[in-house]
Amino acid sequence: MKEKEIKLDVNNMFADVIGKEHGIPKDEIDDYQDTANKIHEKIKKDRAKGKMGFMELPAQSEELISEIEEEVEKREGYENFVVIGIGGSALGNIALQTALNKPYYNLDSKKRNGNLKLFVPDNVDPVRLKSLLDSLDLEKTLFNVITKSGSTAETMSQFLIAREAVAKVVGEDNLSEHFIATTSKDSGYLKIIAERENFKTFYIPESVGGRFSVLSPVGLISAAFCGINIRELLKGAAAMAERASTANLRENPAYLNALLHYLAYNQGKTISVMMPYTHQLKDMADWYRQLWAESLGKELNRDKEVVNVGPTPAKSLGATDQHSQAQLYMEGPYDKIITFIEVENFDEEVEIPKIYEDIEGVNYLGGHSLNELIQTEKKATELALTKRNRLNQSIILPEVNEHTIGQLIYMLELQTAFAGELFNINAFNQPGVELGKNYTYGVLGRKGYGEMKKEYNTRAKKDNNWII
Amino acid sequence: MKEKEIKLDVNNMFADVIGKEHGIPKDEIDDYQDTANKIHEKIKKDRAKGKMGFMELPAQSEELISEIEEEVEKREGYENFVVIGIGGSALGNIALQTALNKPYYNLDSKKRNGNLKLFVPDNVDPVRLKSLLDSLDLEKTLFNVITKSGSTAETMSQFLIAREAVAKVVGEDNLSEHFIATTSKDSGYLKIIAERENFKTFYIPESVGGRFSVLSPVGLISAAFCGINIRELLKGAAAMAERASTANLRENPAYLNALLHYLAYNQGKTISVMMPYTHQLKDMADWYRQLWAESLGKELNRDKEVVNVGPTPAKSLGATDQHSQAQLYMEGPYDKIITFIEVENFDEEVEIPKIYEDIEGVNYLGGHSLNELIQTEKKATELALTKRNRLNQSIILPEVNEHTIGQLIYMLELQTAFAGELFNINAFNQPGVELGKNYTYGVLGRKGYGEMKKEYNTRAKKDNNWII
Repeated sequence: MKEKEIKLDVNNMFADVIGKEHGIPKDEIDDYQDTANKIHEKIKKDRAKGKMGFMELPAQSEELISEIEEEVEKREGYENFVVIGIGGSALGNIALQTALNKPYYNLDSKKRNGNLKLFVPDNVDPVRLKSLLDSLDLEKTLFNVITKSGSTAETMSQFLIAREAVAKVVGEDNLSEHFIATTSKDSGYLKIIAERENFKTFYIPESVGGRFSVLSPVGLISAAFCGINIRELLKGAAAMAERASTANLRENPAYLNALLHYLAYNQGKTISVMMPYTHQLKDMADWYRQLWAESLGKELNRDKEVVNVGPTPAKSLGATDQHSQAQLYMEGPYDKIITFIEVENFDEEVEIPKIYEDIEGVNYLGGHSLNELIQTEKKATELALTKRNRLNQSIILPEVNEHTIGQLIYMLELQTAFAGELFNINAFNQPGVELGKNYTYGVLGRKGYGEMKKEYNTRAKKDNNWII
Repeated sequence: MKEKEIKLDVNNMFADVIGKEHGIPKDEIDDYQDTANKIHEKIKKDRAKGKMGFMELPAQSEELISEIEEEVEKREGYENFVVIGIGGSALGNIALQTALNKPYYNLDSKKRNGNLKLFVPDNVDPVRLKSLLDSLDLEKTLFNVITKSGSTAETMSQFLIAREAVAKVVGEDNLSEHFIATTSKDSGYLKIIAERENFKTFYIPESVGGRFSVLSPVGLISAAFCGINIRELLKGAAAMAERASTANLRENPAYLNALLHYLAYNQGKTISVMMPYTHQLKDMADWYRQLWAESLGKELNRDKEVVNVGPTPAKSLGATDQHSQAQLYMEGPYDKIITFIEVENFDEEVEIPKIYEDIEGVNYLGGHSLNELIQTEKKATELALTKRNRLNQSIILPEVNEHTIGQLIYMLELQTAFAGELFNINAFNQPGVELGKNYTYGVLGRKGYGEMKKEYNTRAKKDNNWII
């Protein structure tokens, strides 16, 4: 069987469909081919220099994949798998799980088929973490602590709390049966701890940043423990890598999508909405939200000029958000691109029964399927947006499975890297979050951050007249 | 005990704190007092005419509240409560549940304390709905079907499917033990069905639109079945209604917040981010997203001029999204207002234990609490944004409970109504979603929508060269 390819349909982005005022002239695509060629060469060079780690993930070694699979085999008698991580160390895990496992997986053992429940507490909310630890049978719980630097305050705090809770139940000597560490190979505090505690450790390649790491052990381990076929996932990514290895904008969906977003951004369409018409990809839109925002939201360009650039990603969900956001998309400012994700074949077909045939306003539904309804709603919303001259496009998945999700992930990652070059910014750093982080370190008393604490403490006093 | 008031801290919205280029001059608040007085009078008049239904909800009749409570008492032996609704008939139910019940409530009977599990499938995704119905013991499941019009295609489809599944298990004669209807008192198809099937029925006041309906039976019934104190919730809303009954912008948080958003919008700050620093309010931000977008996103103003106005709401979550969106907020375009929600006292205090005291980069965490960490992160992010001259403000909840959530909901609803007047648009309609809806009706063959089907079918053919 030929593996099924995902498609990008950009018809409704163009001036000849949605009008000159808001649409993009088709010529511009070819006009940018030279630029695309240059960026393509730059990406190849950067890759050769070892800077584009995410591009190497589809072809990770058989040794690593087997190691992960063996780990799953080896760990018997567990019920729960808890990911301790935040941002790029959490979002991908959640997205893979909701995309590729059955809804209500955690609630129903039939759906798990012997695999582990997955929990990603993610946040450092005390109510949430305590609630989770109270609910789990810790003797049957395996944690994967994920932080590349080994010093992420949120992750290490959660780890310390979980470690204490587990130690109380299983004893200090059995901790290694309950913790895996996923971190940098060469440095970092988590590595030191993992060695001391004899935790099984997986490594995040140095050149793979958090938001590009879902196809590394960061995302693969929890996926494998939840029964997701990680080999197919990587094959899907490899298939997209192959398709997207051309510089030709008319053939490379990652490049074309990046360019269209860039051109639209320059016309004031600064909000990028991702709107899957399947509940399963809801969290994929959230994962993309980090990828796009943190990569492209930058103060300085590569020439050190202040540009304060960056599209704002927004996640949306069809058909649900037709009853929440669609009014704004249809009638509000012309400041958005809507990217639908359409699924051609769902895993289930659900018929709407014919009941109340005498009641108009209900009787027309019977005999159709829920599949028809959601697919029609997508097409109807697409048409209505197009009639209103609103930029929109569709990513079409033949079905939701490991292979198509692998394709989608790789496409969006490469698209982000390419968009970074178009915006002439560094898509792989995040200097803007340092200040807030450093204040936190300062206040909590981390060594070397005394100055930050001082600065924090000298902040302007609030005027109580404006706290009402 | 004096009930605890929520507060709105707007210090960091002003020019004297974040600079003239982006900040709002304080004078402008007083300059707008006359406008505020006029809007205040208009709202009062509209209310007197019966147009402002949401304002009557805090003082709903004792009769109704008792009826809901008795319904909960009467229904014995159930395990699950399923809300069948979409948009305003779903989001509020979800938001109340996550805000006011313990995290992982559905997964752990200890947390439910005898109350029912809550499910809000919301979407018309066939995989999701089938998965839910397969997982539930339908003999022990009670559904609340919510649609004011009684003709919402998504809701009625889900109902038909659920009805068939339940009938198979309990028989056609026992359906009324498993379905409640919440709909219009005077008309609509659901009312007809409910009468025929002898379903217990609750009514949505005519003057309360979906997105303003969470404090009506729409949100109260599922809340009551999940053990939430709906009397306290309404008392909280009433307390805010009382506080917000003044036209004085310096005293009325709903009006002040609306005005600040309006002024900021006119300066190009068109994205309104709500960022609670507690996981429990994550879905409240989603509920707000509908309220704000659907109310204010409008093509025409009240004078029928084309304005295509409307701020774009975005939900965010602290501390999680510091690792996802903060980079963009700090360095990207100056197009956002960030509204933090801060919680002063969490229901739990979680200590970070002192372990690995010799390991720098981790050892400073021990002895602090997770509460300190998340609260410090909020304040650190606030300070960093302020230093970067980014508009931000905070809604401060003394704690998360029914009373404070009631206050918050009412404040945001009134704020939305007031903002509608500032923008000179009708905040209570949603004409922009009709077209897409009507295409769907047409395609599915609803009587009277034949023309829409024709129009749908004559849509431009896609150019396959641009589907890659």
